[in-house]
Amino acid sequence: MRKTVYLGPVPVGGGHKIVVQSMTNTKTEDVEATAAQIARLEKSGCEVARVAVPHEEAARALKALLERTTIPLVADIHFDWRLAEAALKAGVHGLRLNPGNMKDPDGIRKVVEEAGKRDVPIRVGVNAGSVDRKRFPRITPEAMVESALFHIRILEETGFDKIKVSLKSHDIPLTLESYRLFASLRDYPLHAGITEAGFGPSGLIRSAAGLSLLLNENLADTVRISLTGDPVQEVEAAYALLDALGLRRRGITLISCPTCGRTEIDLESMARSVKEELSEVTEPLTVAVMGCAVNGPGEAADADFGIAGGKQEGLLFARGKIIGKYPEEELVKRLKDVIMEELRRKR
Amino acid sequence: MRKTVYLGPVPVGGGHKIVVQSMTNTKTEDVEATAAQIARLEKSGCEVARVAVPHEEAARALKALLERTTIPLVADIHFDWRLAEAALKAGVHGLRLNPGNMKDPDGIRKVVEEAGKRDVPIRVGVNAGSVDRKRFPRITPEAMVESALFHIRILEETGFDKIKVSLKSHDIPLTLESYRLFASLRDYPLHAGITEAGFGPSGLIRSAAGLSLLLNENLADTVRISLTGDPVQEVEAAYALLDALGLRRRGITLISCPTCGRTEIDLESMARSVKEELSEVTEPLTVAVMGCAVNGPGEAADADFGIAGGKQEGLLFARGKIIGKYPEEELVKRLKDVIMEELRRKR
Repeated sequence: MRKTVYLGPVPVGGGHKIVVQSMTNTKTEDVEATAAQIARLEKSGCEVARVAVPHEEAARALKALLERTTIPLVADIHFDWRLAEAALKAGVHGLRLNPGNMKDPDGIRKVVEEAGKRDVPIRVGVNAGSVDRKRFPRITPEAMVESALFHIRILEETGFDKIKVSLKSHDIPLTLESYRLFASLRDYPLHAGITEAGFGPSGLIRSAAGLSLLLNENLADTVRISLTGDPVQEVEAAYALLDALGLRRRGITLISCPTCGRTEIDLESMARSVKEELSEVTEPLTVAVMGCAVNGPGEAADADFGIAGGKQEGLLFARGKIIGKYPEEELVKRLKDVIMEELRRKR
Repeated sequence: MRKTVYLGPVPVGGGHKIVVQSMTNTKTEDVEATAAQIARLEKSGCEVARVAVPHEEAARALKALLERTTIPLVADIHFDWRLAEAALKAGVHGLRLNPGNMKDPDGIRKVVEEAGKRDVPIRVGVNAGSVDRKRFPRITPEAMVESALFHIRILEETGFDKIKVSLKSHDIPLTLESYRLFASLRDYPLHAGITEAGFGPSGLIRSAAGLSLLLNENLADTVRISLTGDPVQEVEAAYALLDALGLRRRGITLISCPTCGRTEIDLESMARSVKEELSEVTEPLTVAVMGCAVNGPGEAADADFGIAGGKQEGLLFARGKIIGKYPEEELVKRLKDVIMEELRRKR
C-alpha cells in the first residue's frame, strides 16, 4: 500500500479513490479567465487543478485565484524557488517542482521547510523530454526513475516525505516500466499520465491505452489525461476511462453499437442526442442505444435504461423490463422522461 | 503460440503482425456505396473488411462486391445457413457466424464442409448481449467462453479447425477475463474488440483502454475498434492504438504537449495543421510539436522531426538537430518541406 498525501482535503494514495485532475491553459495572471476555467473544470468533476506559475506576475495572482476557487490548486513551478515560496505563502494546496533544477540549495531548503510546515505535498514530475541528457543519453526506465530519485533525495534529506511522483512520457512501454520500477523502490503516491499524447482521437487513444495499463496494475493514485485543447475534455476523458475500467462512475455511461448493414434507425444521431439530453446527470447510470434485434434487446435489458431499435421504431427498456414501443422520433424524449422521473423520485 | 488462419492472403494469428479490420455500415446490397466505403477503408490501412449479410439480397451482392474490392471480405451472418452457403459460393474470404444459432444441422454441415474445401475461416463471435440468458442468467467470463465453445464444438465435430474467436462486451474486466480464460483452453487465433463502446471520445477511450490490456497480454491477433460512425475512424483509431503500444506504425505519430500557461504560440492549430498537411504520409515518422522551453527541445530532438515553440517563433528539428529558427506562421510549411524532401530522397 502506498502512502497518502493530502491536497487540501483531497487524499491521494493509500487506496483512496483515484483522483481526477487537470491543468489550466489560461494565463494564470488572468485571474478572471483562470478562475472561470477552474469553475468549468470543477463542474465537469475535476478534483484538483494545476496552474502554471512561470513568473512573478503569475505567482502574485495565486492569492486572488485561491479566493475565487473551491477545489485544491497545485502550482507548477520550474527553476525558481522564489516562485515556489510565493505560491506557498499565497496558500496553494500542492506544488509541482523538481528541486534538482533549482540551483540554490538554501532557497530549496526554505521552500521545503515552508511546505512541511503547511502540510503541502510536492510532486516530483519527471518527463522524458526533460531528463538530463548529459547524464542519460538514452531514456530508459532506469534513467526516468534515477532522475526522479535525484530530485526526491533532495527532499528526503530534509526529512520531507509528502511526496508524489510522476514519470511521464509519450512512450507507453517506457512509461509502464518506469512506474513499475519506481513503485518497487518507494511507496510515494503516483500521479499518472501519458504526456505529449497529441490532440484529437490519437491523443485520447494513447492516453487511454497507457493509463489503462497503469491503472490495471494499480500504478496510479491520481490521473491527468493531457490533451491539447480545452482541459474540460481532459476531465471527461478521465472519467470515461475510470468508468470503462470499472474504477469510478460519474453520469451516463453510453453503450451503443457501431451500426452495420442491419441497422434500420439513425443510431448515431440518436446516441448523440441521448448523451446531450442527459449531460447534466451526475448519478452513474448505464444507457444502451442499440440498433438491431441481434444484440440489442440483451444489451438494452442489461443496462439501467435502454433503447433497442427496430424499423423506424424501438423498444424502451427500464431496469431490465420493456416499458413500451415508440416511433423513432419519440424514443429519446421518452427515455429522458423515464430517467428524470426515476432521479426525481430518488433525490 | 496460437494457430494461423488465412483470410485470403492475410495471415491472422501465429505471431503474425496484428491485423487491422473494420466493418462497413452501408447496405451491403448497395454495391456502389459499399465498394466505395471499402476502398476508403483500404486507403486508410484497413486489411480486412466485414460486411453484414442479413438477407438474400445482400448475399446476392457479394459477387459484384468481391469483383470491385481488393482486401479480403468477411460475411457476417446470423441464423440462416443458406446465406452462409451463398456467401461461400460468391467467394468471400471469411465467415462470421455462430453455428449453434442456425437451427438446421444438415445445413450447418454443408456450410462447414464448403468452408473447409475453400479454406475459408469461420469466426465464432460471442457478444455479451447475445449470450443465451436461459442457460446463463449472469454474464461471467465462464458464460462467455462456454457460449463460444458451444459453437466451436459444432465446428470441431466435423473436423473443421480454421476457427477464429471473439468474446466481446462493453465491460472491460469481463472481456479481459474471457479472453484470458479462452486462451488457456484453445489455441485458435483471437479477434479482439470492445463492442458497443459508444461514439465520440468515450467510445475511443473504452476501446483503447480495453484493447490495450488485451494487446499487452498478447490476447489479440486481429482488432476491430467498434465505433458508432464512419468506419474509417475505426481504422485510424486501430493504428493509433497499435502505434501507441509500439506494436505497429503507419504514418505520422504526432507528439504534442497539452499547452499550459507557459505556451506562447498557437500550439493546437499548429498541431492540427501538421497532422492535416502530413495526412498522406504512410511511412512511420514521429513529429513533435511542442509549446515551450521546458520539455520542448528534448522532445523535438528525440522525434524524427520537431518544432519547439518559443515566443511567436520556434526551432525546427530534423533527426535530432536544430536546422533553423522560423517565425510561427512559417514553421509548419518548413517542417513539411523538410519531411517531404527526405521522403523523396528515400523513395
